[in-house]
Amino acid sequence: MGASPLEDKTGRGSRLVLILKSRRQHSVADLARLCGATVRGNGDTLIGGIASIQSAKHGDLVFAADSNWLQKALASQASAVITGDFAGEELPKAVLLARDPKGAFARIAVLFSQKERRSGIDKSANVDPSAQLGKDVWIGPGAVIEEGVQIGEGTSIAANVAVGAGVSVGSDCDIGPNVTIYSGSELRNKVIVQAGTVIGSTGFGYVRDEHGRYELFPQVGRVLIEDEVHIGANCTIDRGALDATVIRRGTKLDNMVQIGHNVEIGENVVIAAQTGISGSSTIGSGAIIGGQVGIADHVRVEEGVILGAQSGVPTNKIVRGKGVVFWGTPARPIREYLKELATLARLTRKKGS
Amino acid sequence: MGASPLEDKTGRGSRLVLILKSRRQHSVADLARLCGATVRGNGDTLIGGIASIQSAKHGDLVFAADSNWLQKALASQASAVITGDFAGEELPKAVLLARDPKGAFARIAVLFSQKERRSGIDKSANVDPSAQLGKDVWIGPGAVIEEGVQIGEGTSIAANVAVGAGVSVGSDCDIGPNVTIYSGSELRNKVIVQAGTVIGSTGFGYVRDEHGRYELFPQVGRVLIEDEVHIGANCTIDRGALDATVIRRGTKLDNMVQIGHNVEIGENVVIAAQTGISGSSTIGSGAIIGGQVGIADHVRVEEGVILGAQSGVPTNKIVRGKGVVFWGTPARPIREYLKELATLARLTRKKGS
Amino acid sequence: MGASPLEDKTGRGSRLVLILKSRRQHSVADLARLCGATVRGNGDTLIGGIASIQSAKHGDLVFAADSNWLQKALASQASAVITGDFAGEELPKAVLLARDPKGAFARIAVLFSQKERRSGIDKSANVDPSAQLGKDVWIGPGAVIEEGVQIGEGTSIAANVAVGAGVSVGSDCDIGPNVTIYSGSELRNKVIVQAGTVIGSTGFGYVRDEHGRYELFPQVGRVLIEDEVHIGANCTIDRGALDATVIRRGTKLDNMVQIGHNVEIGENVVIAAQTGISGSSTIGSGAIIGGQVGIADHVRVEEGVILGAQSGVPTNKIVRGKGVVFWGTPARPIREYLKELATLARLTRKKGS
Repeated sequence: MGASPLEDKTGRGSRLVLILKSRRQHSVADLARLCGATVRGNGDTLIGGIASIQSAKHGDLVFAADSNWLQKALASQASAVITGDFAGEELPKAVLLARDPKGAFARIAVLFSQKERRSGIDKSANVDPSAQLGKDVWIGPGAVIEEGVQIGEGTSIAANVAVGAGVSVGSDCDIGPNVTIYSGSELRNKVIVQAGTVIGSTGFGYVRDEHGRYELFPQVGRVLIEDEVHIGANCTIDRGALDATVIRRGTKLDNMVQIGHNVEIGENVVIAAQTGISGSSTIGSGAIIGGQVGIADHVRVEEGVILGAQSGVPTNKIVRGKGVVFWGTPARPIREYLKELATLARLTRKKGS
Repeated sequence: MGASPLEDKTGRGSRLVLILKSRRQHSVADLARLCGATVRGNGDTLIGGIASIQSAKHGDLVFAADSNWLQKALASQASAVITGDFAGEELPKAVLLARDPKGAFARIAVLFSQKERRSGIDKSANVDPSAQLGKDVWIGPGAVIEEGVQIGEGTSIAANVAVGAGVSVGSDCDIGPNVTIYSGSELRNKVIVQAGTVIGSTGFGYVRDEHGRYELFPQVGRVLIEDEVHIGANCTIDRGALDATVIRRGTKLDNMVQIGHNVEIGENVVIAAQTGISGSSTIGSGAIIGGQVGIADHVRVEEGVILGAQSGVPTNKIVRGKGVVFWGTPARPIREYLKELATLARLTRKKGS
Repeated sequence: MGASPLEDKTGRGSRLVLILKSRRQHSVADLARLCGATVRGNGDTLIGGIASIQSAKHGDLVFAADSNWLQKALASQASAVITGDFAGEELPKAVLLARDPKGAFARIAVLFSQKERRSGIDKSANVDPSAQLGKDVWIGPGAVIEEGVQIGEGTSIAANVAVGAGVSVGSDCDIGPNVTIYSGSELRNKVIVQAGTVIGSTGFGYVRDEHGRYELFPQVGRVLIEDEVHIGANCTIDRGALDATVIRRGTKLDNMVQIGHNVEIGENVVIAAQTGISGSSTIGSGAIIGGQVGIADHVRVEEGVILGAQSGVPTNKIVRGKGVVFWGTPARPIREYLKELATLARLTRKKGS
């Protein structure tokens, strides 16, 4: 079991891929202009799609991260390669040289992977007459749009989505199938929400009475999700208790991320899968949070902090240090954590011998 | 990034909040009677809603947890404050004094946050003619109710929910959008299930044969969820293998909690987000289980135990001690765990010096 | 709170169970033939269902794992017991002796727990005219089948499922309610997907630009799920970036498992609930992965490895050893891990004394 080759190169597989690709071709020179790269070799080479080095065919552009991958790319069936400035002189096929080749490849890829844009309201959708829909909105089959909902221009709401009363979704958003957006939520523009995610659920705030029974503390606040936030599949984002749960511009959440009530997440934060953030915690802009991290309530993770996968931050803690990596539970600077692991291994060996 | 202020105080935001609030006003004296508080200042002050101290406006009641917050509350625009018995004599606005001010605030909040009660069957719902629906039931758009389902009086089934054949849901339950309740499940009264949760899925019980292949052990049991259980969004609760998975009265589950087959959870247990409990384990009444906790199979967590976030309990273990906090994997009393962390840090420093 | 007795033995509960059972009866001799067991006692005894020892009634077959359970089984109301070769001579009721009694019980159980097979297209389903449906396919209410979808013979698509353009689902598959299968996914035969799962979501691959903003790296690959793979409820399986995410034949996933882009999972792997596998990692055939395990990106878990619950494997690591159990974060052989725990406890006690 090596790297992942394209399993099925025959009829059906190719057809699936075609659905996702536009059929337009672009010259290497045009692509270079688009992303600020320089061209070696024949700039007139026509490119019709992107591919991995393993699965590339004639007409494809591939990305090579280093000189090792570049050798493989040049030996592949691809028609052109995009790579870093390090590439040597002798190049048997068209090559684009970019300062940030991965980013340049991402920008080019958008040209070739545009999904077909639908607009209109499917006849089986349930749209309340009081809803206000912008131009070129798509409401998929079985989607439910309740009273007073506002949906901006160019936004797509997929099949069987449920959007509660008074929700506001901005323009150019993409809401996947089976998503639920509860009343009291506001999504701004260019927000992507993948299938099965729940936004605006009731937070987990209870008051215990003298008999040990639990009564719900009011959970009547809002959710605000700013521009260009991407939310993965099967996430849950609770509404604020009295105020708002906020996710700022440009932040990206992987699948199955849990965001508690009154949490505030800054701009351009990334949070990997299965991480949970408890009530009233704040995450500073530019933080990077690994998978399966647990952040308790009333925590402050400051700007630019990096939390390693599976680490845990206890209640009320402040974690600070731009670019500092933390690991373990309770989370501590990774150098410290690794030293502790080494100490423990050493003492165990000593005892064993 | 401090505490979470209400982002948008203008038109649209306010409208969203209004949807969730009734417009009725109550006097401070009436509210005090409701929750057994005593009044200082003008009992005739009219209250139209609840709010956080940061976002309060004229006509709002706010909650102050301690004397620090009380100062802020008294300086806010709120018309009244509810707080503990400690408040001094000089109070510039109406104040309710309660023994359990947080619980009292929760009880008052219910008055102001009643959701509009709908009843009827949406024309796009799919209800089998053999289903028995109580008085004032609401079946939302796209919801699917299969043969022989029983739904009690006043229960609400939201958009695009799927309820399998023979399921029984009691009265005054609230089932969120896109929930799935498989055949073989019984929910009693006043149960809340938030969006995307799955109840009655097939458990993860396989038999490995001599060729290393897996065959499903029969998973044909039931799920029983008793009165006043609350289940968060995107949870999964497996049916029993041959008998039942049971969640007793008053227990509360946060989002993305996983309950395996044949698990039994006692009364008034709270389980925070992303915790998983494996097959045939039992959780005693009054236990408190943090987020991302892992409980293996055939474990017995006894009455009143507290399991800290991210802790792990291995197969077959018994965890006991009312009010004792456990932490770490394998879970041990928190004092022990913290001492071990201190020992390790000390030995590491010593070696480093 | 002991083992889980069947809560409700009266009218309603029994009715629920009946829905799942066929009413056909089989003789003990016939059941023995089916699973290669030998019979002690009366082979003509008629069996109408399976049950747990606690809840068994006349006409039921029960399973006894050891001689302890056998005593209880023989004292129960069950009409017959299946157990291992160890059972003695004196047996008061019909007994089936099997080399692998648990597997034999599982095979017999299938006879009694067949769900009613439906076929046809519900009138509220949305099936694109270009979709190709095999014989005896069932498309449930509110399900959405987009253009060019292919569904094989005998496959069941439950209520409110969304199947994207060009998806291929093989024969005899069972897709639960509220599942989403994005465009670009291929499921082969006898695949089971439980409610709320998302297949083919966009992977979490971003390129950070010089301003700290994130741009999506192209995520336009596929998902391939081979024969007899079972996927639990509320899982998420991302499509490949450029190539495919692959799950090989016979592998079983519990609930809330997250599979990142370009992951390849071998044959007959089992993965317990809430485990996450990051991008481009590979899992060898026959591996056993516990609950809440975290596997970072570009990891190689080799054939037959066993990863204990909550363990963590860092980026780029190779974990190898057929049948070797690993535990902890970073995951290490369990003997080593347990010794380290013992060392730490010993040193802490010493310091304390």
